[in-house]
Amino acid sequence: MQGVLDIPQELSVLEELIFDSLPRVETVFAGQLVSDLPPVDQMCSYIERYRGKMLRPTLALLCGVTANPEIDQLLDDKAFGQLITHSHIISGAVCEMVHMATLVHDDVLDEAEIRRRGQTINMLKGNEISVILGDYLIASAYELCSSLNSPVPSQIVGNASAVMCTGELLQLHNRENLSLDEATYIEILERKTAALIGAACELGALATLGFDQSIHPTTLALKGFGQYLGIAFQIQDDVLDLLGTEETVGKSVGKDLEKGKLTFPVIHHLEKTGVMDGTRSLMLLQKAASGDSSVFPEITEAIKSTGSVQATQELAESYVRQAKDALADLPASAGRSMLELIADAVIQRSY
Amino acid sequence: MQGVLDIPQELSVLEELIFDSLPRVETVFAGQLVSDLPPVDQMCSYIERYRGKMLRPTLALLCGVTANPEIDQLLDDKAFGQLITHSHIISGAVCEMVHMATLVHDDVLDEAEIRRRGQTINMLKGNEISVILGDYLIASAYELCSSLNSPVPSQIVGNASAVMCTGELLQLHNRENLSLDEATYIEILERKTAALIGAACELGALATLGFDQSIHPTTLALKGFGQYLGIAFQIQDDVLDLLGTEETVGKSVGKDLEKGKLTFPVIHHLEKTGVMDGTRSLMLLQKAASGDSSVFPEITEAIKSTGSVQATQELAESYVRQAKDALADLPASAGRSMLELIADAVIQRSY
Repeated sequence: MQGVLDIPQELSVLEELIFDSLPRVETVFAGQLVSDLPPVDQMCSYIERYRGKMLRPTLALLCGVTANPEIDQLLDDKAFGQLITHSHIISGAVCEMVHMATLVHDDVLDEAEIRRRGQTINMLKGNEISVILGDYLIASAYELCSSLNSPVPSQIVGNASAVMCTGELLQLHNRENLSLDEATYIEILERKTAALIGAACELGALATLGFDQSIHPTTLALKGFGQYLGIAFQIQDDVLDLLGTEETVGKSVGKDLEKGKLTFPVIHHLEKTGVMDGTRSLMLLQKAASGDSSVFPEITEAIKSTGSVQATQELAESYVRQAKDALADLPASAGRSMLELIADAVIQRSY
Repeated sequence: MQGVLDIPQELSVLEELIFDSLPRVETVFAGQLVSDLPPVDQMCSYIERYRGKMLRPTLALLCGVTANPEIDQLLDDKAFGQLITHSHIISGAVCEMVHMATLVHDDVLDEAEIRRRGQTINMLKGNEISVILGDYLIASAYELCSSLNSPVPSQIVGNASAVMCTGELLQLHNRENLSLDEATYIEILERKTAALIGAACELGALATLGFDQSIHPTTLALKGFGQYLGIAFQIQDDVLDLLGTEETVGKSVGKDLEKGKLTFPVIHHLEKTGVMDGTRSLMLLQKAASGDSSVFPEITEAIKSTGSVQATQELAESYVRQAKDALADLPASAGRSMLELIADAVIQRSY
């Protein structure tokens, strides 16, 4: 999250610690994928272009530090090796690998779209490599996770991954369902995004407290923080897909409309419109889902006109508040303050 | 392997034990995929059509029984609960889930082909569901594996899965490589097939001996057996793809030629042909890989003419021999005899 946050002076030591530790996560990540087969290494180089914001490793490391009861003293003493151990680094790398596997597999679906418009054999080869590279990332994540010398992390990561898949399946099931309701939308977000972010926070905490401390209040608080934050994060992602530009967001936008995925601004808008306007909006959404992107501007104008963007921001803010509330019983510390800053930043970002 | 083997009378108690235990594997398998979301359950029902020969669970159970030093006494006493525990059942289910995930993802690639010839949106949806269902199977396998209360099974399954992916990537890399050599072909088989079959045998043995017994001679013997058997199994699969009929094999045949994958009969044939005949064969193979299936009969005739089918059978037999040799230091028992029978059956099957 470097560059997104306006970090106050008193958190600069912690910021530097996290920032300096992320390259260690990348080293473990890359090391796990190294193969004795040169062509495999060559294909793995494709994975690098998926490198993202490193949100999950950042949270794993930061929750690990925050779970340490001596955090502020250790920061003062610059006892960094006690605050961030190899277990924290591995936890961060595992979560980023699982996350990146989902990005690689998402790409399969996107490439499939491009193929719908004509390109074939190259795209087919790309598809095959993407499916298997995603599988390789998942398998490597599990193998790395098992090096934590307890079955608990494997259970957490396996469960979070399975829950993510059920979220994706639920979303697929509701594609082009123009009467999707808020509760189901939130359920999709809890599963497809919040579960893994919660797991990253949980693993970080456990790497500090011990892997038998799953029901320690600190573990539960940090896991809960991650889960609420994950929902807020995904709501903001959905807003950016609807209203952002490709230049600022850094990836294609308008994908959700194109794929017939209803997100909160649209759900709220359809709830607010009367019968006549609602019918017009439904027609526009159907056109968008059938590939007619010329209707996008009219859709976004309609959504703004019902105050639905504002309502979405308020929804995201309510989850950020719940994320911070989850930390309420933790002692004040640099770690807790930094987590609170990240929570705010997640819904202020424009990329 | 029920129905494939000609089981002698003295092995009938063991045969019945394995046969009666496989439904328990299926129950654990299905139970792990159950979701509280009805649409997810509905989509998981697609997975059932991938149900296969249950080779991996059979081997996990049988290796578990064989690793038991009291096997023959316990069989006599019908102390079945001591021979096959819940850990064996879980080990079998985990390996079958990982295997089935690869079948589901293979199907993505096959569906992609069908789409090349025209069908689109339904196929696209199928593709997406297949990718995510495969991921769900893998994640569920890992979650289930972590219930074995040791990180060792997770390490074994994570590693075998990663190695499988490298085998698939190596195979993709060598697609349409008409100068693929025997060593690379065997390397692909070791990775994409033998690693998981070896892991199934290893897990079965460890479920009996204890998960800290990875370097116990019995574990190593049974793992080695599985690895050699896996190579023999895949060689036979490749022969069936080339020479079998869709009716007997039960799936599409000729896929390897169509996808430009060289298998041993072709590699051997190209080695044996002179310059003139070799050029003709290469031309036919290129035609096959570009989608012209009318050349298949001429290719198979050419391959038979150089004795390459015979040579392939001999190669498969040599791996069956090595598989049996791996068991040489185990005491004679019903389990060992049954494993030897399975080894022979693997290359005698026509499906």
